[in-house]
Amino acid sequence: MRPHGRGALEMVEDCLARIGGDPIHAWAALDPEYARRQARALDAGPARGPLHGIPVGVKDIFDTADLPTAYGSPIYAGHRPAWDAACVAAARAAGAIVLGKTVTTEFATMVPARTVHPRNAKHTPGGSSSGSAAAVAAGMVRFAYGTQTVGSTIRPAAYCGVVGYKPSFGMISRSGMKMGAESLDTVGIIARSVADAALLGSASAMRPDLAKLELLGNPKLGVCRSPNWGHMSREGADAFEAAVRRLGQAGAKIVDAELPASFGWLDAAAQRILVYEMARGLAHEIAHHRARVSPMLLERVDAGEAMPYPEYAKAIAYAADSRRQLADHLRDVDAIVTPSATGEAPLGLESTGNTAMSRLWTLLYGPCVTVPAGEGPAGMPLGIQLVGLPGADARTLAVAAWAEQVLRSA
Amino acid sequence: MRPHGRGALEMVEDCLARIGGDPIHAWAALDPEYARRQARALDAGPARGPLHGIPVGVKDIFDTADLPTAYGSPIYAGHRPAWDAACVAAARAAGAIVLGKTVTTEFATMVPARTVHPRNAKHTPGGSSSGSAAAVAAGMVRFAYGTQTVGSTIRPAAYCGVVGYKPSFGMISRSGMKMGAESLDTVGIIARSVADAALLGSASAMRPDLAKLELLGNPKLGVCRSPNWGHMSREGADAFEAAVRRLGQAGAKIVDAELPASFGWLDAAAQRILVYEMARGLAHEIAHHRARVSPMLLERVDAGEAMPYPEYAKAIAYAADSRRQLADHLRDVDAIVTPSATGEAPLGLESTGNTAMSRLWTLLYGPCVTVPAGEGPAGMPLGIQLVGLPGADARTLAVAAWAEQVLRSA
Repeated sequence: MRPHGRGALEMVEDCLARIGGDPIHAWAALDPEYARRQARALDAGPARGPLHGIPVGVKDIFDTADLPTAYGSPIYAGHRPAWDAACVAAARAAGAIVLGKTVTTEFATMVPARTVHPRNAKHTPGGSSSGSAAAVAAGMVRFAYGTQTVGSTIRPAAYCGVVGYKPSFGMISRSGMKMGAESLDTVGIIARSVADAALLGSASAMRPDLAKLELLGNPKLGVCRSPNWGHMSREGADAFEAAVRRLGQAGAKIVDAELPASFGWLDAAAQRILVYEMARGLAHEIAHHRARVSPMLLERVDAGEAMPYPEYAKAIAYAADSRRQLADHLRDVDAIVTPSATGEAPLGLESTGNTAMSRLWTLLYGPCVTVPAGEGPAGMPLGIQLVGLPGADARTLAVAAWAEQVLRSA
Repeated sequence: MRPHGRGALEMVEDCLARIGGDPIHAWAALDPEYARRQARALDAGPARGPLHGIPVGVKDIFDTADLPTAYGSPIYAGHRPAWDAACVAAARAAGAIVLGKTVTTEFATMVPARTVHPRNAKHTPGGSSSGSAAAVAAGMVRFAYGTQTVGSTIRPAAYCGVVGYKPSFGMISRSGMKMGAESLDTVGIIARSVADAALLGSASAMRPDLAKLELLGNPKLGVCRSPNWGHMSREGADAFEAAVRRLGQAGAKIVDAELPASFGWLDAAAQRILVYEMARGLAHEIAHHRARVSPMLLERVDAGEAMPYPEYAKAIAYAADSRRQLADHLRDVDAIVTPSATGEAPLGLESTGNTAMSRLWTLLYGPCVTVPAGEGPAGMPLGIQLVGLPGADARTLAVAAWAEQVLRSA
């Protein structure tokens, strides 16, 4: 064991013990001996970096050189890539141990996978980063990679009562990620605390500044219930209002930052961009393995293939305009505070839940962080989301860490 | 043979005969029997699409399921991916035959590969799409995929006397391309005519509208010698001026569209973005195969890794601002006309040439098309480049087809 803390092997064994037989089906690939080998090598060597010896889970939408990578699709069962995705390589260079691959829905889209909610197996853990969120929430691993194309990091993290961090678009390299919709796909992180999310984000982006979480004084927060407030459940809405009050009582300056009506078409634009780009990004699978693509996904990509270019171009131009407007709109606040999801993780496993509170923010490209904010009447977690401008990851994480602290002590 | 033209097998045999022993070293992987199998299947079946039976070359930076993919690096010699890159899959879905993989420089960067210029083996064919440009110029294949991160499609196409098309950033999916610098990497096309470039671009982007090449009347062209005009060779500058005069005589309205001084930092910004992102995009190779990465590339990625985030962020913000300014600047012209390269393909194989006339346009994200524009005193080809605003691919291709016609008959 290393003098400064727990040894790598000890941490790996702890994770493996907590995983056990993986009753929540969070893992797509697990190789305990491979994890132990990495740990022994790290324990025997010099400190590699800020993640030295810490196990990480990797959503099975990322290529890994030493573990199978199936992208959540039967088409790629047993597939063995030749190299680690860039974010995984960066984490390993900082000392992390690849513990295993976590379950993703099919190509990180909407059809539920086999993972269940760690608190109650009758509830969805959310998706598409289902395995990462459930594994972190169940204490099986300290943090894990997710991705977000619509709401796939923030929503499952909120449902599972952990922290989710969707960095600014482009902050973490997507090299080695199976991309579907290139204008939306973003590497995300799920962790048990904002500090841990920042730690893995910092290593993945190779940006030491991100892990500092420095905030000068109490933050100024812009409350945005968003054009999709109507999707909120009663308990979700109540919990959001309570959390905002609590943040105000703790010293945050709370101002209104409702989006003007000109943002009202963001959801529709995101949907157009999604299906248009996925039809092109998944061209190989559609052409060669159509029978093994789910009917729900086929329906969307077929709509995307048929979409005339001007409809897509209009959505792309609108999104770019909206980003410029957002920069003006957020000039005077440290972050927006908005719900992470429409409510608790729904009962039932036939859907991964409602994406309404995430998709517009994904398209706006700024950093999003969900932190736990109590529980609903079903005993399931709720979260609130801090959102910043593209590039403002350091400040948004710092604000989120502040909010996390306030809400944890509530 | 099909009633409407040559059969697929005939076209494949024609390509293979022209390739022969590949004296210009344009091909990284070639499997004649695999090409013939594809051709026989297409000849025996119904028409698949607009590329039915036409062989295409694929730069070896794209994954292919049936041919080895080495990304120009000894690290990946013999690597066999599990799926075709999305653009390759789209071309095959439209009926194309994957003839083989064309030589790329190491990870599509700057160290020259083994390909030589088809007109004179003592000259570079340009890079990094060296094999694609040389193969198309030598008549070995009708068109081929390239990529452009700095100037890797336009420059080799111009050097080799063929057409190069760098689409708007994001137009063709990069799924299955080995990305290095995500904000710059763009799928490109090299062809023997603008019509062919548009044909393959249309199929790759799954945009039927792109192949039409409709132009209403003679174009209005904005002449832009660019902030890098000082890099031009005497013969390159003379040929550019002559080509512009010829376009004017043929009916184009020629206006001045010189970039204002505020664009003067684009080259430096592109360089910062390139090295910062490549250090992150190639994290796996740097961490695990450092000894097999070229010293020149290592030097750049090490500089990129050490670059503080604010320096990179400043370049990203500047590029976004420049794109907005360009939209105002080009409001009144159909396309910019600017040199494709600083002159003829240089003598010697120790460099792939000067990127000065391309890198700023790559960062500005609009479509770029180079068309042949005569020869220099060394008997090597020269080109001129048409540039449009992001998204204006259809119009830029139409203008380029018009210019190609004018300059071919000159």
